Amino acid sequence: MNSSLTIETITEAAARIKPYIHRTPVFSSVMINQLCGAELFLKSENLQKVGAFKARGAVNAVFSLNDADFSANKGSDRYVTTHSSGNHAAALAYAARCRGIKALVVMPENAPPVKKAAVAGYGAQITYVESTQEAREMGLAEIVDQTGAVFIHPYNDQRVIAGQATAAMELIDQVPGLDAVIAPVGGGGLLSGTALSASALQPAAQIFGAEPEGANDAFRSLQAGRIIPMTDPQTIADGLRTSLGELTFPIIQKHVQEIITVDEEAIIHAMRLIWERMKLIVEPSSAVALAAVISKRDQLKGQKIGLIISGGNADLDHLPWFEG
Amino acid sequence: MNSSLTIETITEAAARIKPYIHRTPVFSSVMINQLCGAELFLKSENLQKVGAFKARGAVNAVFSLNDADFSANKGSDRYVTTHSSGNHAAALAYAARCRGIKALVVMPENAPPVKKAAVAGYGAQITYVESTQEAREMGLAEIVDQTGAVFIHPYNDQRVIAGQATAAMELIDQVPGLDAVIAPVGGGGLLSGTALSASALQPAAQIFGAEPEGANDAFRSLQAGRIIPMTDPQTIADGLRTSLGELTFPIIQKHVQEIITVDEEAIIHAMRLIWERMKLIVEPSSAVALAAVISKRDQLKGQKIGLIISGGNADLDHLPWFEG
Repeated sequence: MNSSLTIETITEAAARIKPYIHRTPVFSSVMINQLCGAELFLKSENLQKVGAFKARGAVNAVFSLNDADFSANKGSDRYVTTHSSGNHAAALAYAARCRGIKALVVMPENAPPVKKAAVAGYGAQITYVESTQEAREMGLAEIVDQTGAVFIHPYNDQRVIAGQATAAMELIDQVPGLDAVIAPVGGGGLLSGTALSASALQPAAQIFGAEPEGANDAFRSLQAGRIIPMTDPQTIADGLRTSLGELTFPIIQKHVQEIITVDEEAIIHAMRLIWERMKLIVEPSSAVALAAVISKRDQLKGQKIGLIISGGNADLDHLPWFEG
Repeated sequence: MNSSLTIETITEAAARIKPYIHRTPVFSSVMINQLCGAELFLKSENLQKVGAFKARGAVNAVFSLNDADFSANKGSDRYVTTHSSGNHAAALAYAARCRGIKALVVMPENAPPVKKAAVAGYGAQITYVESTQEAREMGLAEIVDQTGAVFIHPYNDQRVIAGQATAAMELIDQVPGLDAVIAPVGGGGLLSGTALSASALQPAAQIFGAEPEGANDAFRSLQAGRIIPMTDPQTIADGLRTSLGELTFPIIQKHVQEIITVDEEAIIHAMRLIWERMKLIVEPSSAVALAAVISKRDQLKGQKIGLIISGGNADLDHLPWFEG
């Protein structure tokens, strides 16, 4: 099933999304390097369109669709749809606007106001449902039934994975000679894409996933050799509460050296460190990657390490160092 | 007295500081551009060494010093000194460490802990005094008397102004064809440097200063045609509470079109806008420049505007949208 996901697919994705996507900068901090005893390179996808790497996958998916894909659409408009409380919703709305088609997004009614506003701001039509998985899937099924909209899954989709893979592809071009690459893991779209790019373009680099202890399904799935879904995740890293998918799991299983898990305190500490020392706003999910490097600094000493900073959509009204 | 401050001086400063300074990136936001009806280019000196443009001036000053300048130093060590509660203290400490000499810094005892830690972190020796201007100047005089240290003023110094001018020089190189350049104004080091670079390298551009209403000495000084010192400034933009100096005032008088003043609410709004939409941590003083552009959007409509984002040393424990 992954046979079509090659480095050529990723190169094609990079060309396809180029007009709509930032080539994001890579930043380093002398102080954080000293703290880790290593050279860290932060690929700042928080500065990406919609504030997260998710724009890459959504744009690639939406622009990959051809006439046949839209053949189920009812009426003269073209539709894509998804359900998401977070960055994928905004990313799909952005991608649809770039292509001039309509995005129909199912969101839980308790999604953060700033995320609702972002999705609406990109011109998507939002359907609010209760915040259960069941209500979200039912809302989506209804939309597909009524409109024939094309469903774009947030991560279990080859076009999405190929898009997310372009972040690591750029990073490897921007920073030659990386010894390790690390990305946070939720559903695994970013980590599997990162693994595909890194294993092909920088085979000397070890590939790590970073995961909250309170949502450690990827860690447990790799140990068990099969997908163990996450039930009741407990973490402020809201982007990492989802479970691995059937497409992302085998790629991670094949290429990823280790899933490093970190506790909430370490995530908050790393997040604050990036804010304070690098002046970059990163969301908790992104800080998980730095927290993982800090926790493994003995093992990673002296290495050149690329970190995918996944996004910057932090809730400025609820900063974790003020809570609890 | 300004005769030696030419574009050649600034070009020399740029070469002198290059090994120690970041060429900071320039960012734009589609959403903020739409809001302003103009094209804005934010020169992100918040990502500069020590988190502020101040590193440029301090490094230029410290590396301009020759043996004769140090001749008053007592003992075998070389010393520079200043008094500052803010970014100039950290910048001088950083510059001294780069050159391998000692920085002796007078700080008010009520300076924010994070600023004290930054100055100490760069290896400076700190003398704490009461937070009055008199106590600070006395503390400084004592240090100069005891050690013969060379005093580097935070803005009323040609070498410092030439260093600050390199930020606008880079911006003009990075973004051709600017119609306007705007910088915040406190003591005027950044604004006068910006004015010197812009008037020489992009003479078609109008040059604006941005100032809080609650610390509007530059506005009033330009109106009166003489320096009117600021007494009892009232603004969260802590970097802009100082008064113009004898060196900076005439440069500003000659080249700056207008000082645009903005109220506290506009500053906080602009700061939050940059945090939320651009994922960049900027301090209140930097947000004053965006607030000024927003307040003059009718006048600036359709223009290409460069903004110097002065720094990112915001107090993460006291965000203005939580206060008051």
